[in-house]
Amino acid sequence: MLSQHSLLVVPLCHDKQTSVLNFPAIVSPPSTAIVYDQHGPPDTVTRVTEIPPMEIDENYVCVRMLAAPINPADINRIEGVYPVRPSVPVVGGWEGVGEVHSVGSAVEALSPGDLVIHSAYLPGTWQTYVVQDQSLWYKIDKTTPIEYAATISVNPLSALRMLEDFVDLKPGDTIVQNGATSIVGQCVIQLARVRGIHSVNIIRDKPGSDEIKEKLTKLGADKVFTESELEVKGVKSLLGDIPEPRLGLNCVGGNAATMVVKFLKQGGSMVTYGGMSKKPITISTTYFIFKNISLKGYWLQEKNLDETQYRCSIDYLLALARAGILKYEMEMVPFKDFHTALERAMGKQGSRRKQILKF
Amino acid sequence: MLSQHSLLVVPLCHDKQTSVLNFPAIVSPPSTAIVYDQHGPPDTVTRVTEIPPMEIDENYVCVRMLAAPINPADINRIEGVYPVRPSVPVVGGWEGVGEVHSVGSAVEALSPGDLVIHSAYLPGTWQTYVVQDQSLWYKIDKTTPIEYAATISVNPLSALRMLEDFVDLKPGDTIVQNGATSIVGQCVIQLARVRGIHSVNIIRDKPGSDEIKEKLTKLGADKVFTESELEVKGVKSLLGDIPEPRLGLNCVGGNAATMVVKFLKQGGSMVTYGGMSKKPITISTTYFIFKNISLKGYWLQEKNLDETQYRCSIDYLLALARAGILKYEMEMVPFKDFHTALERAMGKQGSRRKQILKF
Repeated sequence: MLSQHSLLVVPLCHDKQTSVLNFPAIVSPPSTAIVYDQHGPPDTVTRVTEIPPMEIDENYVCVRMLAAPINPADINRIEGVYPVRPSVPVVGGWEGVGEVHSVGSAVEALSPGDLVIHSAYLPGTWQTYVVQDQSLWYKIDKTTPIEYAATISVNPLSALRMLEDFVDLKPGDTIVQNGATSIVGQCVIQLARVRGIHSVNIIRDKPGSDEIKEKLTKLGADKVFTESELEVKGVKSLLGDIPEPRLGLNCVGGNAATMVVKFLKQGGSMVTYGGMSKKPITISTTYFIFKNISLKGYWLQEKNLDETQYRCSIDYLLALARAGILKYEMEMVPFKDFHTALERAMGKQGSRRKQILKF
Repeated sequence: MLSQHSLLVVPLCHDKQTSVLNFPAIVSPPSTAIVYDQHGPPDTVTRVTEIPPMEIDENYVCVRMLAAPINPADINRIEGVYPVRPSVPVVGGWEGVGEVHSVGSAVEALSPGDLVIHSAYLPGTWQTYVVQDQSLWYKIDKTTPIEYAATISVNPLSALRMLEDFVDLKPGDTIVQNGATSIVGQCVIQLARVRGIHSVNIIRDKPGSDEIKEKLTKLGADKVFTESELEVKGVKSLLGDIPEPRLGLNCVGGNAATMVVKFLKQGGSMVTYGGMSKKPITISTTYFIFKNISLKGYWLQEKNLDETQYRCSIDYLLALARAGILKYEMEMVPFKDFHTALERAMGKQGSRRKQILKF
């Protein structure tokens, strides 16, 4: 795996460059990295380490990292409960933004000083300098706030693709989602609103739900219900004059997934992208046969966006973020305080805000 | 609804024909029919009645019925638990075959003596003479055994469309289904075999399962498992050298539906067309996200096959039936013994064979 390249302690021997053509070797600065050598509880298996300078191959780019988030999937990957496991030892972090520090001899599209985001298909962003193939970096507008640049390619990209790729939604249509307070959920509300699409949002019953409703409504939510408010006959009467939803998004499972299906219009689809309740999805047969409901899944990693679609999506999302139309709360934490940020990201300190490592 | 036409006791007044053009009225023979006046237990709400002769409108065709099955959906419709309820009183039976007795003045495509099947989109086949619009009748080869002609347009047609319309199956592919002993299940096995598609079949645990396995294997099943035989880790190891299934068919729900999903290949689809266990479908979130499984539903009534597709499908299925390649067990019962056949169809007499009323 390419990323492990950056963990090699002994410099690689590039016959072609060093012996035959005798180019001067380009070498990265030493890098401070969060590494784990085995799967397990993230706060015990992760450690800070120094990675020595390494030679930069002709198609490789060395990036000085500026910011990288701690995503739930990063935690699952360290725990070893994610379906795809990189071989250990490995540097953590799949997403992030940085500034190009130096480029391999064959790299033309990127230059030192460019602001680039990491494609999130390989690990290695939790370190001060990342050396990876040029194809894994995407150059973005330098005026982009780094916290949005660091976080655009997982949650907002998922929200956008789920709104675009399953149902051909038109302005005036409706979507319904659970887990509406998550960052994906907040992005869905805002991206739907930009397109003139109504959103019906389901949140958990917990203290402060009125404030959450108010917050989501400000983002553009048409309706927000707690799960207990949906314990009624005929949830669709709660829609008022909003059309029945053609698309549902589920990141919770259990009862909250059933609620999404209950809202769906004849022929509608529910897309599952998470299972926060750890409960399965249980749906009556009649929804499939007589209401022609279909259930699908979404996994960013498997989407295999082509390059054009990826770039268009990222450009669109970052433009909205720069314009203040797409927003969500984050908390910047100095990289040296990684383990504090990790504890917060794991929900151990009550904070639910997205933790962004600042290098 | 057109079918209720056949229940009208007072002949319609056709101004155009009788007053203006003064054509002689064509009148149907009196018809003996199974009618229900209210929804409820089929053996108590159905009654035999005589329907007086009626005028045959210019686009209508009067058919002397030869045979009509009692399908599970017919029973559900009488019970009133089916999502679409015809207004009562109504003649029962949606499917059947007959011989054209007489035709309206504008009918050119059909003539007395033609063998025709009923399209199964409207009720009214449980009677000796049926008068319906010409578009509801489809002329078939006169050499077709009437028990197959009477039953081809619901179960075998569903089996065919489910194999064709959800996944682009190629010879060598595999499908998996539960409820494999049903007529749809038996048709799926045989239709798959004709196309070189493997079938993995799940049956209930009950006495005689070895005989059932033998019977389904003779029809062309590659694998037959009882549900309890699948209570193992990694059901896919049971596939041997058969590829993982890309399509699953579910008419049971509950555990038997979960089993179908467990067999599916990454990216596969399960289509639900029944819920015999009356249990919902429960699927873990991970199947949607990481295995990209999708769940869909099939309902013949909603398929809205276009005329060409309907005719091609029926012709294909009847050709297979005439050739003895598509077969399933049925029991012919004289129409006068309707209530005996009904009790058998409702499972009250232990017989599980499809009951066909013979007029």
